[in-house]
Amino acid sequence: MSESLQDYLKTGQYRLNEYIMELLEKDKMLPDTLAESVMYSMRAGGKRLRPILMLAAFESFGGQGEKVLPVAAALEMVHTYSLIHDDLPAMDDDDYRRGQLTNHKKFGEATAILAGDALLTRSFSVIGQASEIRPDEKVYLMSYLSEAAGATGMIAGQALDMEAEDKESTLYELEQIHNLKTGKLLTYAIVAGAFLAGVKPETLELMKRFGTYIGLIFQIQDDILDVTGDESVLGKPVGSDEVNNKSTYPKLLGLNGAKAQMEKYVDLAHQCLEQADIKSSRLHELTVYLSTRTS
Amino acid sequence: MSESLQDYLKTGQYRLNEYIMELLEKDKMLPDTLAESVMYSMRAGGKRLRPILMLAAFESFGGQGEKVLPVAAALEMVHTYSLIHDDLPAMDDDDYRRGQLTNHKKFGEATAILAGDALLTRSFSVIGQASEIRPDEKVYLMSYLSEAAGATGMIAGQALDMEAEDKESTLYELEQIHNLKTGKLLTYAIVAGAFLAGVKPETLELMKRFGTYIGLIFQIQDDILDVTGDESVLGKPVGSDEVNNKSTYPKLLGLNGAKAQMEKYVDLAHQCLEQADIKSSRLHELTVYLSTRTS
Repeated sequence: MSESLQDYLKTGQYRLNEYIMELLEKDKMLPDTLAESVMYSMRAGGKRLRPILMLAAFESFGGQGEKVLPVAAALEMVHTYSLIHDDLPAMDDDDYRRGQLTNHKKFGEATAILAGDALLTRSFSVIGQASEIRPDEKVYLMSYLSEAAGATGMIAGQALDMEAEDKESTLYELEQIHNLKTGKLLTYAIVAGAFLAGVKPETLELMKRFGTYIGLIFQIQDDILDVTGDESVLGKPVGSDEVNNKSTYPKLLGLNGAKAQMEKYVDLAHQCLEQADIKSSRLHELTVYLSTRTS
Repeated sequence: MSESLQDYLKTGQYRLNEYIMELLEKDKMLPDTLAESVMYSMRAGGKRLRPILMLAAFESFGGQGEKVLPVAAALEMVHTYSLIHDDLPAMDDDDYRRGQLTNHKKFGEATAILAGDALLTRSFSVIGQASEIRPDEKVYLMSYLSEAAGATGMIAGQALDMEAEDKESTLYELEQIHNLKTGKLLTYAIVAGAFLAGVKPETLELMKRFGTYIGLIFQIQDDILDVTGDESVLGKPVGSDEVNNKSTYPKLLGLNGAKAQMEKYVDLAHQCLEQADIKSSRLHELTVYLSTRTS
């Protein structure tokens, strides 16, 4: 990763974290335990990949200023809620995330369910209250977020993923799960950023395709790292897909086949960007980063 | 209850049910199990009190036509999600609701969590996609729904209610819980209906007060019925507040004290309506109904 991209990621994370924390600290959430539980998971960090992709898409199409921040924050809140609920005992039953106890391990299941609900609920008014976005733009962004995150999007992906456990999936089924579970929110990031920069409808369609490709790139690299990754860099155990008997790209296509498939998507993603005539190379760089990341 | 009000309630329930079912059946929810789980809880019925109050408020201020229906549907979806999550083992751990198995008993916990998430998520785009509402009105209604349902509203009420279990609450604490847990969404119903009918800001403020009163009336009568109600009419066991050691109005004020408190709120609610100069007696009737209902 180039030093410039590293700085870009750090700056994006910083801006986003500042914005979300300030926003949520002003909320009069009750009771204290619930507020702490919400803040605990929001503070836990992570790459902030979705908001950074939104910022990058916004800037790549000439967007300037802060109007993208509330939408980026809302998206990260939705992503965080989904992690809290996915970690629950009834779902993936995970005790640790990003090196710290999962929300329900720290605050109990009831509070974790409510903290997730609270983040999801709040995300919509974060967009609704944004001062620099027009009402018709807000309606588009809020409705699209609902669609991308709901039972026709991310939630469908999570439910399908659970149903696919201990079953042999086809490549088609695997891609459907990833397109829904991961792809929909990543695509939202790209499309919302481009939309706020005021691109034409045709460009928005191109960005939808680009978003789908980077969702798949992200997921294939995730699967590859679970086979070839370095635990100390990755910060989580490798081989868990094998243990959990999950269908993955390396399992269906072999390791080289999975890499080849990913390279195909990287090419297609670059093509989308070229057709969209963007003014910066940031989204190109991020595409490469997603396909070569080691954690 | 007058025959006219009974018809009014039935007609309202019918309109609302038709609207929601048609809407959700068109959604391409995946997988089938999740779609079934969502439809199961939405079909379970109940009084549809919140949407009916919204319709009544809308009509009382001269609102006509269908523009209120999507907002009423969204509110009922939020209410239904909250019941699914509240019934979960980690929360109230209920096996039955409205005479049928709770969602998690029928579909398992994971699916119930996701079905609740899906209904909450979808509620916002139901408003966002409404064809007869202006974008600025949609933004107000979506943001206000987020606020009323979130960690400064209904979710806060549920969390405070759980914390209050097995503790002696003061009347102040009890009313705070009810104002948040039940009052916020009931108030939303009234305010959104009046707002869509185009009332002045002063009238909206009056309707916020009216909503708070009917929330308290609803809750006190709930507590009273748990002491004096007829199980066969009520459709659920009485005395459960005693068993669960919950703070209630009759416990804090005595049965007669609770009734007197409720009558005070009924008077205040009527006063709000008189000051708001409404054109029909429907909200008056519904106020009386809420304070005298037997189920």
